[in-house]
Amino acid sequence: MKINGKDWKTIWLTDDLEIQVIDQTVLPHEFKIKTMKNIEDVFYGIKNMIVRGAPLIGVTGGYGLALAIKEDPSDKNLIESSNFLKTARPTAVNLSWAIDRIYNKIAKIEKSKRFSFAIQEAKTIELEDIEMCSKIGDNGLKIIKDIFKKKYFEEKKENKKINILTHCNAGWLATVDWGTALAPIYKAHRENLNIHVWVDETRPRNQGASLTAYELQSEGIPYSVIVDNAGGYLMQNNLVDMVIVGSDRTTSNGDVCNKIGTYLKALAAYDNNIPFYAALPISTIDWSLENGVDTIPIEERSEEEINFVKGLNIKGNMETVRISPVGSTSYNPAFDVTPSKFITGLITEKGVCSANKESLKSLYC
Amino acid sequence: MKINGKDWKTIWLTDDLEIQVIDQTVLPHEFKIKTMKNIEDVFYGIKNMIVRGAPLIGVTGGYGLALAIKEDPSDKNLIESSNFLKTARPTAVNLSWAIDRIYNKIAKIEKSKRFSFAIQEAKTIELEDIEMCSKIGDNGLKIIKDIFKKKYFEEKKENKKINILTHCNAGWLATVDWGTALAPIYKAHRENLNIHVWVDETRPRNQGASLTAYELQSEGIPYSVIVDNAGGYLMQNNLVDMVIVGSDRTTSNGDVCNKIGTYLKALAAYDNNIPFYAALPISTIDWSLENGVDTIPIEERSEEEINFVKGLNIKGNMETVRISPVGSTSYNPAFDVTPSKFITGLITEKGVCSANKESLKSLYC
Repeated sequence: MKINGKDWKTIWLTDDLEIQVIDQTVLPHEFKIKTMKNIEDVFYGIKNMIVRGAPLIGVTGGYGLALAIKEDPSDKNLIESSNFLKTARPTAVNLSWAIDRIYNKIAKIEKSKRFSFAIQEAKTIELEDIEMCSKIGDNGLKIIKDIFKKKYFEEKKENKKINILTHCNAGWLATVDWGTALAPIYKAHRENLNIHVWVDETRPRNQGASLTAYELQSEGIPYSVIVDNAGGYLMQNNLVDMVIVGSDRTTSNGDVCNKIGTYLKALAAYDNNIPFYAALPISTIDWSLENGVDTIPIEERSEEEINFVKGLNIKGNMETVRISPVGSTSYNPAFDVTPSKFITGLITEKGVCSANKESLKSLYC
Repeated sequence: MKINGKDWKTIWLTDDLEIQVIDQTVLPHEFKIKTMKNIEDVFYGIKNMIVRGAPLIGVTGGYGLALAIKEDPSDKNLIESSNFLKTARPTAVNLSWAIDRIYNKIAKIEKSKRFSFAIQEAKTIELEDIEMCSKIGDNGLKIIKDIFKKKYFEEKKENKKINILTHCNAGWLATVDWGTALAPIYKAHRENLNIHVWVDETRPRNQGASLTAYELQSEGIPYSVIVDNAGGYLMQNNLVDMVIVGSDRTTSNGDVCNKIGTYLKALAAYDNNIPFYAALPISTIDWSLENGVDTIPIEERSEEEINFVKGLNIKGNMETVRISPVGSTSYNPAFDVTPSKFITGLITEKGVCSANKESLKSLYC
């Protein structure tokens, strides 16, 4: 996707067989490239959210395992590095999925070939991710078109507009390219549909106000940043036509684990009869789990993320300010689970399905 | 209530017949007293939220009209000043209510006596507010005790604790003393009940993270600041025993208009079968309205409140940082309406009632 008119991806392999990524901790105010040379760089980068988003941390973790094998292709290191990388973030299933995929690819081949196979597999995951997100975009686009037709059926309004609300950042910065929740929006924009996006700022890390707003602005798509509190009001007042969010982990019965606050928006959409979709690669589906609320491990992050807010000060420098009283305590769970009953549908690369086991299984036929 | 062990109120009349208030725009990082000498000071102070909270802006508006009459007791000025002050904030009904009350008190008496009657009536409103909030506290305390008993019925747990979630600041800083939503919590704390409060930070102005946290910390009540997104997760995971919020305007059928985001918490409480109460003086009841979503005017505030966050920088100075990309657009509605069907009960100074017309009317018997 575009930044200042130039095409970028979020991650790429350099000629020196190192990894480079866009540093997402300083967007939207600075554009910086970070180089990751070894497994420690990758672990740190995932843990501290230099890269984030379930699909992207999967791809990055895959490259991380390859970099570990470059240094030491032993069985011991393969096992230890896999386990180590998986602990960088606990909630998204893609990280484990990508690491296991590379692990399985190289565990039984001779050590001298492990690195080249690992890097090849990581590259394959990267390319598959792009293709997958593009397909999610195509499948979601059909839904947007249907909602558009339904809203303006037989109407000859001049200003036919669809308002889509999204939470957090499930755009191309959360993947390699295209994004998941935002992919249908990008596809719709390229077909000249009149889209306006309500961007939840998504406290505590403000991935909406920073990353989603940055993406949409870069692509020239109209949007408005709103506080996380505002979505219910907008839905009550007919200002939202649909909601699309991402998913970090999806259970076999269609529960969606996504950035904290998603559940609240699903409740409001349900109460106001507004379509609520999660867009996700099928790699986020965890077939081993059913009821997400009781089973998905929810990452608890630092209190600092709540106590402090980072932004651009009046001199144009990045600065962090404290909002709560000194000495105050906070609690910072990073995800919540939206039960499937509140979800209109799941948009995947294999098609759109209802949020239940039978429908999810039908994607594989 | 206490700040550093000393008792304070939010507003008081000085010997010079001027008004002094605690400046709520710099809390929790600075404690400053502001003097209001005339109607312009009062208008500015209400509009820019030096004072805020439905009951407190009522009291302040009342004093504001008195100050206007001090300068010019004419009918023309009385009418114009009343209308002018009412426009400082559009949503809370208390502002109009207090101004009308003073207007009606003095409109028909001779001009020379108007100021002293006005100041007396404003003082009466102030004292009534304290008494009213104290009663709301007493009435809410009974509910907390009931929930406590229900939760720990026959249990011999050592650490018997009630978790209460609140949104925004409906504490003593929103009133003259005691508060509305926090009054039952203060009363419970004084009876040595083990209370822990989940404090929604309440973007965009962070009245929770700043004012509610400041109040609770000053009174020594355990609390944790959470982002506005987190309440649903906490409720799903049995970490919330009840919700208490304030109300800026309550319709005759029991709909509650309160700080933006309240509705989302009510939906989550309803979905998880958690008691959801609004604590309000009956002066917030607007008998002229029924369905709040369609009828209550919702204040739209500046985009700046979303784009920028104010806090304490590393040098200990107040500083404002920008979180969204330069050039980004925002939308900032300040309140939403929670339909009565999601509300367990209304806690008023006259008792607790259900959120419907019959029950509200019964308070007046």
